[in-house]
Amino acid sequence: MTNIIPPISGTDQYRVVGQGIARLDAYEKVTGKATYTTDITLPGMLFAKILRSPHPHARIININTARAEALPGVKAVLTYQNTPRVKFNAAATSTYTIPPLEAVKDQYLFDAVVRYAGDEVAAVAAINEEIARAALDLIEVEYEILPAVFDPLQALKPEAPAIHTHCTQKNVVGESLQFGLGDIEVGLAKAEVIVEATYKLPVQKQGQLETQAAVAALTGDGKLTIWSTTQTPHPTRRIIAEIFNLPLNKVRVLNPPYVGGAFGVRIGLSAKAEPIAAALALATGRPVKVVYGRWEDFIASDTRHAGYITVKLGLSKDGTFQALVMQAIMNGGAYCSWSADVPGAIGSRGLTIYRVPHSKFAGYSVYTNTSPAGACRGFGAPQPTFAVEMTVAKAAAQLGIDPVELRLKNIIKPGDSWVAPFPCLSSGLEECLTRGAAKIGWHRRKELEQFNAGSERYKRGLGVAVGNHISSAFPFQTDYSNVYLSLQPDGTIQLASGVVEMGTGTKTTLAQIAAEVLEVEVEAIAVSLADTEIVPYDVGSQASRSSYAAGLATLQAAKDLKEQILAYISAKWQLAREKLAWQKGAVFSRDDPGKRLTLKEVAADADFHNRQFATVGKNASQNALSWHAHFAEVEVDTQTGAIKVIRLVAAHDMGKAINPAIVTGQIQGGAVMGLGYTLSEEIIYDPDGRQLQDSYHKYMLPMAPDVPEIETIIVEAGEPTGPFGARGVGENAVAPVAPAIASAVWQATGIWFTELPLTPERVFRGLKRK
Amino acid sequence: MTNIIPPISGTDQYRVVGQGIARLDAYEKVTGKATYTTDITLPGMLFAKILRSPHPHARIININTARAEALPGVKAVLTYQNTPRVKFNAAATSTYTIPPLEAVKDQYLFDAVVRYAGDEVAAVAAINEEIARAALDLIEVEYEILPAVFDPLQALKPEAPAIHTHCTQKNVVGESLQFGLGDIEVGLAKAEVIVEATYKLPVQKQGQLETQAAVAALTGDGKLTIWSTTQTPHPTRRIIAEIFNLPLNKVRVLNPPYVGGAFGVRIGLSAKAEPIAAALALATGRPVKVVYGRWEDFIASDTRHAGYITVKLGLSKDGTFQALVMQAIMNGGAYCSWSADVPGAIGSRGLTIYRVPHSKFAGYSVYTNTSPAGACRGFGAPQPTFAVEMTVAKAAAQLGIDPVELRLKNIIKPGDSWVAPFPCLSSGLEECLTRGAAKIGWHRRKELEQFNAGSERYKRGLGVAVGNHISSAFPFQTDYSNVYLSLQPDGTIQLASGVVEMGTGTKTTLAQIAAEVLEVEVEAIAVSLADTEIVPYDVGSQASRSSYAAGLATLQAAKDLKEQILAYISAKWQLAREKLAWQKGAVFSRDDPGKRLTLKEVAADADFHNRQFATVGKNASQNALSWHAHFAEVEVDTQTGAIKVIRLVAAHDMGKAINPAIVTGQIQGGAVMGLGYTLSEEIIYDPDGRQLQDSYHKYMLPMAPDVPEIETIIVEAGEPTGPFGARGVGENAVAPVAPAIASAVWQATGIWFTELPLTPERVFRGLKRK
Repeated sequence: MTNIIPPISGTDQYRVVGQGIARLDAYEKVTGKATYTTDITLPGMLFAKILRSPHPHARIININTARAEALPGVKAVLTYQNTPRVKFNAAATSTYTIPPLEAVKDQYLFDAVVRYAGDEVAAVAAINEEIARAALDLIEVEYEILPAVFDPLQALKPEAPAIHTHCTQKNVVGESLQFGLGDIEVGLAKAEVIVEATYKLPVQKQGQLETQAAVAALTGDGKLTIWSTTQTPHPTRRIIAEIFNLPLNKVRVLNPPYVGGAFGVRIGLSAKAEPIAAALALATGRPVKVVYGRWEDFIASDTRHAGYITVKLGLSKDGTFQALVMQAIMNGGAYCSWSADVPGAIGSRGLTIYRVPHSKFAGYSVYTNTSPAGACRGFGAPQPTFAVEMTVAKAAAQLGIDPVELRLKNIIKPGDSWVAPFPCLSSGLEECLTRGAAKIGWHRRKELEQFNAGSERYKRGLGVAVGNHISSAFPFQTDYSNVYLSLQPDGTIQLASGVVEMGTGTKTTLAQIAAEVLEVEVEAIAVSLADTEIVPYDVGSQASRSSYAAGLATLQAAKDLKEQILAYISAKWQLAREKLAWQKGAVFSRDDPGKRLTLKEVAADADFHNRQFATVGKNASQNALSWHAHFAEVEVDTQTGAIKVIRLVAAHDMGKAINPAIVTGQIQGGAVMGLGYTLSEEIIYDPDGRQLQDSYHKYMLPMAPDVPEIETIIVEAGEPTGPFGARGVGENAVAPVAPAIASAVWQATGIWFTELPLTPERVFRGLKRK
Repeated sequence: MTNIIPPISGTDQYRVVGQGIARLDAYEKVTGKATYTTDITLPGMLFAKILRSPHPHARIININTARAEALPGVKAVLTYQNTPRVKFNAAATSTYTIPPLEAVKDQYLFDAVVRYAGDEVAAVAAINEEIARAALDLIEVEYEILPAVFDPLQALKPEAPAIHTHCTQKNVVGESLQFGLGDIEVGLAKAEVIVEATYKLPVQKQGQLETQAAVAALTGDGKLTIWSTTQTPHPTRRIIAEIFNLPLNKVRVLNPPYVGGAFGVRIGLSAKAEPIAAALALATGRPVKVVYGRWEDFIASDTRHAGYITVKLGLSKDGTFQALVMQAIMNGGAYCSWSADVPGAIGSRGLTIYRVPHSKFAGYSVYTNTSPAGACRGFGAPQPTFAVEMTVAKAAAQLGIDPVELRLKNIIKPGDSWVAPFPCLSSGLEECLTRGAAKIGWHRRKELEQFNAGSERYKRGLGVAVGNHISSAFPFQTDYSNVYLSLQPDGTIQLASGVVEMGTGTKTTLAQIAAEVLEVEVEAIAVSLADTEIVPYDVGSQASRSSYAAGLATLQAAKDLKEQILAYISAKWQLAREKLAWQKGAVFSRDDPGKRLTLKEVAADADFHNRQFATVGKNASQNALSWHAHFAEVEVDTQTGAIKVIRLVAAHDMGKAINPAIVTGQIQGGAVMGLGYTLSEEIIYDPDGRQLQDSYHKYMLPMAPDVPEIETIIVEAGEPTGPFGARGVGENAVAPVAPAIASAVWQATGIWFTELPLTPERVFRGLKRK
């Protein structure tokens, strides 16, 4: 069901939408008044610490908690022996993974088998952190070490250990997904040139500032209340209710109200912080706080999926794409999390960029004994974008066609058929390409060859890559939003939504949408987010959906509120609805513009007549793709292998920028994350399966000197299904960075790198091999 | 606009409604887990104490807070000099007092003039209670003592001091109200017998268990959040927003979630606990807790209105009422609170019991230098019920007509015209009278005369009194409710309302109404109350309106939810709506009853299809009167003047008892409060205007030995406007106790007492005078 929204006023001239106004949460955040889960302190609160497995794969033969329990100040010790034996999926935001496939539930709160180094073995609640930590040392665990495997290709081999017992094909998570268009054999047969390669993708961490945390309490209202860092309060509530066999309406999950960054790592549970806090609160009857240490957050939170993607592109000599084959084998880590869905996203991203008559994707995730892989900003986009775009770059080189021209020739246009179950109604990708090329000076590509010829040590290159991203989780998950909107008796407005303010500006964006419809100041709207007690169901902030999906529900709510008010005034004034108009937050008679009531006056009048206007706006099951083209200019130090990104132009079509300042921030933040993915970020496991990067000191996030000025271009192609034409933008800028840089590196060095990140060492070795 | 509700199923056989099920808050309360405002503790919280005037009327000439501010640990000291100069009415739950009359706003947070002994002079916030209390002693105040007056009749005299400057007639609060039916002169001329007397009513205290309290904090969401003991969260928010000039949507008021009794004393502000906590939180930037001591709660919280009511009843010799005149002059105390409304309620209660062709009420409240009088359970009913019913008893005696017969002859019947602006659609008063008379053995009245003749010291008597009470605040205040109802994905239901669980069982009653409509178990419904962030506007728990008004909104919400679901299933099954039926929480096809989906299945199906059912039910501007007859049997010790109430039969028609156990509890609790009003409870001011009763030790609440078994009779006359026929019942049982007992005392002693309470001293003096 696609909901086509005509422009509000038949014109693009909005009043609030399109303005880069200051964020509504700015004051609280810059003054340090904003509260996060770690700020929640309750009377009688206990503190929890978690014992983690030192082994990547082992069976617990014996566990003795008696000494820990005897330590004064310890109130509870939990293991697999005294916690619910209910299997769950810590990230499943709905009952389904690609409905109607049911979510893979392969995890217990604690289990007798540990499947990665860091897996939860026991938890302690004590009156302070010191005692809780000391108690961990008193828990005696005897392990039977099991063989472990860390690479998905290794895990598929006959000799590999089976990590779970439920798999129909050993270590394959869920179903192997296959889809495509046309007949791939026909396409490959028609192709005159075939370009093929396999790409190896690294493990990236979200690196969000606030570690995973939760406070659980049995509150006086008879509910299990959990303050949480989750991105998805309602789905998190579902998982909690399932684990503890509680009715949904007896569990409350809320943000307090801010979240210190998320990037996908808090979809569903915040690692296991919520159920561990809840189990300890249920066991002790006291509030319990769990705050993960940074190391713990690194090893026990989901990562981005590493893995292997093979791309085969068939073209005519004139550059027309004929066939595109993708195969993905991803490292799912120890538990499913999003591993059943990510391959589908990888295929969808890879096969929806270009108009190819014959395409085929096949892929799946594989269990290994590493930290679970799950959602990470860009969900299933950076991996195929790197693989497909490098292939396209190579094809352009092989055919001698300008890479920008080759793309302009083949990109999807509105109306083209593709693999997605929703239509392509708009795309500004062509404009992204042409404006981005102009901005970076794409014509200088030839000049750089002269530069390189004249420089021994430093070589330069220009590169380009394109891609797209979703605006909601549909059809991969159930996806719906409800927004509650009410006019208060003083004319101010209350808006509540189940999405989250995790730093992306959602609070401000939703207020702008409502303010635009109602023609009031943004400040007149107070936004409450992310409390299951306040708002109807919402699948939460994921899949770049907050502005689009919750934005649509906001738009619908605001329009309905407006119509309720107009109907009320129509009855009050005994004037037909069409005789009334709404302007600048006031209702007036078209025939007699002096007859006029401001929203404040309407609210007071309604209150006097015992009436309040309130509504729930809904949105469900829509999606639209946003488009982007990145251009990078690099300088490679051939003596050290160091890559310096001189310029990065990020041209993005998100339909409409509700708040261009926020959109620019999202693009820049995403591009920096893409820069890290390209150049430095990687989690490596030692031969014993232990993460070598478990802190900000060891995990190489880009630092200020590594980041060029990111030159953003906002393209607004509009989107008939989106609020004021907007689509999603939160995750978009991560994916195209790596192929843009890597193809620039190719111009500089002549090497087609197939493995990320492009660390100095890897580039240096590549240069040496050459 | 009267909303006539047909019975749900055309039958009185309900499944959940009418069952005396255990209260949903029982577990939390009996285990001590239920949380109250005093349980709220926040990090960095300060504690506040209030400096109160020792004088009943004075001007502050000089106030020096320097020494208090210098005390280590003191964070703020507030007086009239550094707090908002915004006038408010601490009890005004709407902009209006009897719309369109505007509420009388005569109070500042702190003022340079103090108007009763206990009036707020300053407040201190410090790091602990000890320091805050010590700081109070360091505040130096120089007062100019002003003349004071404590009795309303004295306050009307020319020589009396003017307590406020805004009064058009000296010391008269608001408008003098007048209303009635017919032509009173004609009525009095037609009367053959006229009975007249003036009654003096005492100051009663609500005596609720939890003292006034509030915690205010500037929360991380940028709101001023106040946990409060209020009965009316939304209206309280309005007063706070007004005082501090904040938009409504930037203020959050909530119960945490329970309130330890209220009885009217927490309508609007909880005394001034909320704005004092808020002002200190704004001044310090830290959370501030204010908890009134018991003495403070006694002297600084509203009381019931004392005063004088004169009644003149004209009758034909056959007992037919011809004319009824009432005049009320009530003691409003130092500030308006509800004093502009209470006289109207007094007149309405007095003039709506009987069918009298000619009636007239005139009344007003008068400012004095006593604690403010405001709302107290029974709001404007105990006073006129005592005055009118004693007059009727006297008339019966004078005419030699049985008091029950005289009442049966004259009581209002459905369809009769009366002074209220809503119709009388139902009344079970006749049944209350006949069943009550049978239960107490009214025929024994003659026998008691024989007992009295044979007993020197102990004399017995039987008495009766009738009355009515409202089910909402309409038309005296704006009165509307919104109830938010949603079906969760697991089939459980969330219900949210702006009314309060202050001990009256509202939580359970609303759940029963929703459960009845949806045909689910009560346990399937989780009820959230009293948080301005969660629910739309509601004028709160006052005027016995929660079950009736919020109950109607609940009923409407449940019906709408049901219809939404039926429409969904109709579309899903491609079956016309009328082919579907709803039974036991399941939807099925009438033609094929095997085709059936439980609510749990419907919820899961809707979730799968990205849909949630949610709605806001509304109710506004309705009212209906409940009816009651009380019968008392007393024994008077003529040597001591002590009255022993041997039996008390309370027959009540509340239309329909949604939960008979809760209704019985309300009747019994109200009757006990009426017993205290009749026999022992009274606040007396010494010549310096100081309360002599400022603790449970000194204020004589009835104790267990004073209370007879209260024999309740539930009469269910039904009510076309009420949910399942229900009307209000929370306040009803207070009023008829005093006249029932006092007329029994007349039979025992031959004395018509006109002043309450009937303390042994007062009875003894009466006997002595005789």
